[in-house]
Amino acid sequence: MLADFEKPRKPEKEEMKQYLKEEKEKLAACQMKIKEAKLPVMVIFEGWGSAGKGSALGEIIKNIDPRFFQVATMDKPPTEEERRKPFLYRYFIEIPEKGKFKFFDTCWMEEVTDGVLDGKLTEKEYDKRVKSINITERQLVDNGYLVMKFFFHISESEQKERLDALLADPNTAWRVSEEDLWENEHYKKCLKVYDRYLKDTDRGSAPWYIIDADNKKWALLQVLRFLNQGIETALSNSSVAAPIRQNVFRLNPMPKLRDIPLDKEIPEEEYKVRLKELQEELHALHYALYNKKIPVIIAYEGWDAAGKGGNIKRIAGALDPRGYVVYPIASPEPHEKARHHLWRFYNRLPKTGHIAIYDRTWYGRVMVERLEGFCSENDWQRAYNEINEFEKELSDWGAVIVKFWIHIDSETQLQRFTDRQNTPEKQWKITEEDWRNREKWDQYEEAVDEMLEKTSTEFAPWYVLESVDKKYARIKALEIVIRAIKEALDKKG
Amino acid sequence: MLADFEKPRKPEKEEMKQYLKEEKEKLAACQMKIKEAKLPVMVIFEGWGSAGKGSALGEIIKNIDPRFFQVATMDKPPTEEERRKPFLYRYFIEIPEKGKFKFFDTCWMEEVTDGVLDGKLTEKEYDKRVKSINITERQLVDNGYLVMKFFFHISESEQKERLDALLADPNTAWRVSEEDLWENEHYKKCLKVYDRYLKDTDRGSAPWYIIDADNKKWALLQVLRFLNQGIETALSNSSVAAPIRQNVFRLNPMPKLRDIPLDKEIPEEEYKVRLKELQEELHALHYALYNKKIPVIIAYEGWDAAGKGGNIKRIAGALDPRGYVVYPIASPEPHEKARHHLWRFYNRLPKTGHIAIYDRTWYGRVMVERLEGFCSENDWQRAYNEINEFEKELSDWGAVIVKFWIHIDSETQLQRFTDRQNTPEKQWKITEEDWRNREKWDQYEEAVDEMLEKTSTEFAPWYVLESVDKKYARIKALEIVIRAIKEALDKKG
Repeated sequence: MLADFEKPRKPEKEEMKQYLKEEKEKLAACQMKIKEAKLPVMVIFEGWGSAGKGSALGEIIKNIDPRFFQVATMDKPPTEEERRKPFLYRYFIEIPEKGKFKFFDTCWMEEVTDGVLDGKLTEKEYDKRVKSINITERQLVDNGYLVMKFFFHISESEQKERLDALLADPNTAWRVSEEDLWENEHYKKCLKVYDRYLKDTDRGSAPWYIIDADNKKWALLQVLRFLNQGIETALSNSSVAAPIRQNVFRLNPMPKLRDIPLDKEIPEEEYKVRLKELQEELHALHYALYNKKIPVIIAYEGWDAAGKGGNIKRIAGALDPRGYVVYPIASPEPHEKARHHLWRFYNRLPKTGHIAIYDRTWYGRVMVERLEGFCSENDWQRAYNEINEFEKELSDWGAVIVKFWIHIDSETQLQRFTDRQNTPEKQWKITEEDWRNREKWDQYEEAVDEMLEKTSTEFAPWYVLESVDKKYARIKALEIVIRAIKEALDKKG
Repeated sequence: MLADFEKPRKPEKEEMKQYLKEEKEKLAACQMKIKEAKLPVMVIFEGWGSAGKGSALGEIIKNIDPRFFQVATMDKPPTEEERRKPFLYRYFIEIPEKGKFKFFDTCWMEEVTDGVLDGKLTEKEYDKRVKSINITERQLVDNGYLVMKFFFHISESEQKERLDALLADPNTAWRVSEEDLWENEHYKKCLKVYDRYLKDTDRGSAPWYIIDADNKKWALLQVLRFLNQGIETALSNSSVAAPIRQNVFRLNPMPKLRDIPLDKEIPEEEYKVRLKELQEELHALHYALYNKKIPVIIAYEGWDAAGKGGNIKRIAGALDPRGYVVYPIASPEPHEKARHHLWRFYNRLPKTGHIAIYDRTWYGRVMVERLEGFCSENDWQRAYNEINEFEKELSDWGAVIVKFWIHIDSETQLQRFTDRQNTPEKQWKITEEDWRNREKWDQYEEAVDEMLEKTSTEFAPWYVLESVDKKYARIKALEIVIRAIKEALDKKG
């Protein structure tokens, strides 16, 4: 794409002035429409060093009310903290919310092409990252995002001139980095790497726009035109349903909930002994995990009053408090609802070597949000694959993922609800909403069956915890977590 | 995708029966909705020999009213006639019309993978074809098509068993082709080629669905489910605006119409001599073209009364009638309007070695259809790139493409209109519509300027013919056509 890039015709000076004025006014005028349409606009600037990304960005945001945009400056290596998260993390947490702009001063491209150029990224890892990026961009577009990607292009000689000019002036010399100079010295090599990346990530829903950046005003005009056009197109689409993709992951066969025998139990004495043994074992494993920098994700879903809290407590109780966190997941806050449904979970990932336990999870999308109509049918139907792709990303990063469905039958729930209602010190545990949800038992059962069937992947399996006897469920949970961690430690050698 | 394909869980016999019934009813029920929504549905069946594509197809169409579907059986090599058209031609002319299904019993995949397997397709040609296919599928989706792609997958041993069983029975032995046997003998090699193609063409807007085809009923159920889901998704989208992609082709700089001097003329005597010379030269070149099998496309657009007809006559008059055709292009017929806007031009392509002259063209999309609101703004804005991609396809096929804008000024048009009106034998040449169009001169001028600027590519350039002196315009047209043909002949050596 870069190799055979054709410069568009640059307007004359007077024309340019007029066109710039028009496009700036257009951008200013569409802010409110973007807000009203709740359109999230992600604008990505990539390109050669000193091609003028920063200057164009500065000019563009002058036309937008500061309440409606933010800038994410990603043009720096990940911090030590960010290195302990998945590759996409530091970018994904920056995605805009509905109705707002987010401008990225470089995004996931630069880290990948830099990795190729300095030889740290193998061919295989490059392919994986490109795949992750294509998946993420597709998911964003499917979820209603406008993703505009600009590459600022200048020639080798133009870049050299600019760098020389900057270096010659003591007031600007500091702006020239070692990387800029290296890039210019190895222009052809870089061109090849950039070109390949652009081709590999140029998809119908989020195409690349190459900007002829030889002249600042002209570059600005090109960006403004493409941006305004992209916004116009996106605004003309009210919610678009995206194709539901086929599952491509190996799935573990799961029984239907109604076929699961719930008579399993463990005697009190045996429970106590086993619990102590298992907790001690988990405690020891936690340090091993920490040393090997393996992150662990434990996800809990289940019926109300099935014993989720007590179960989590038995896991957490075995862990060093410095190395784990329990995330209780309620309905999303407005700023969370305003973003991709997985955003709030990207914000709650463990660091490598840490354990995160989720009391309810990202599966709300295909349960409560599905049943209560909080998202469209297309949204939750797409979500199975989106979630599998999310968990695959975490698994590829090295995470151990264990997902529990804590299971009881409807009669047991009724009994426990009634007991809670009748026991003063337990009354806080039971709400009107619990009773309302209970009325939808059959619909939930259908949704849960579908969820278990479609998202129990090899890398992030579901386990049903039979919890009519809560003690049985706790022992089983501990055993599963321990087994999964041991396997991961063995693999890591 | 095939290499790591995970078989989905097959339902039990009784369940299957019930599910099949449900999905068949769903399909039957959505026919009328598809018709009402004017949704064109393109269903592509690809896969291993004897994987059961035909049988599934037969079962599916049983649920659809014969008025609403057609089957295109492409599972055969192109005919001699088709070989003289671009690769995509024989598929593209089969695309469904709005509101109807078209089922493809193999499509553009098979010809490409066969070409790779028998070594006739170079790596470079493979890449080009994959690119063409991705472009075409994107264009179809952008133009409102639902494109559902199914690959019927069976294992090596399953295929062998089926072929053996067919061969063992004299009544079915004829159904086993040499190709089927070869494919089974070289299963792993084929798998690799198919897998690569599937990956290369699996895009967000037209993803692949791999069908576990070990069992006929089960395969049918999978197809029906994906198909019904795809239809449901597409129906929930009323017209979707697609991103406007950046131009990627080298464009010739074009003057604005208003800046073109129109005082050029040629003396009568010189005209006569030149005309004769040039027509004789073109006549001779026509045979050379025919021998070298080079197709030629000459496209005419221009102002009413600018002298288009007379100009075409001078070109056509020089040609052997067996080797050219003039296509007068009026507004699209209903069956043409019901398809991709370029479909009716795919249907009017010359054969290799032949010349096609178009009296008005596919540029109606960005002129009359734009100005009269016959298509959406997104449609005509997308069309510049769609047309460039179309012409690039023709150019890559080997076609010489020359496009003429016959130009006069508004006063000259008025004079000629008045003259026509006042001359009884010319009155048929002037209509109310001509006067109406004339009132929109300025809007047309703006649209034509934009068209010339955005679609004068190196491989399909526009030429303005100054036609206040019609004789001058004719000589210029002949010279340009001759030069273009000579260049193509030189290139072909």
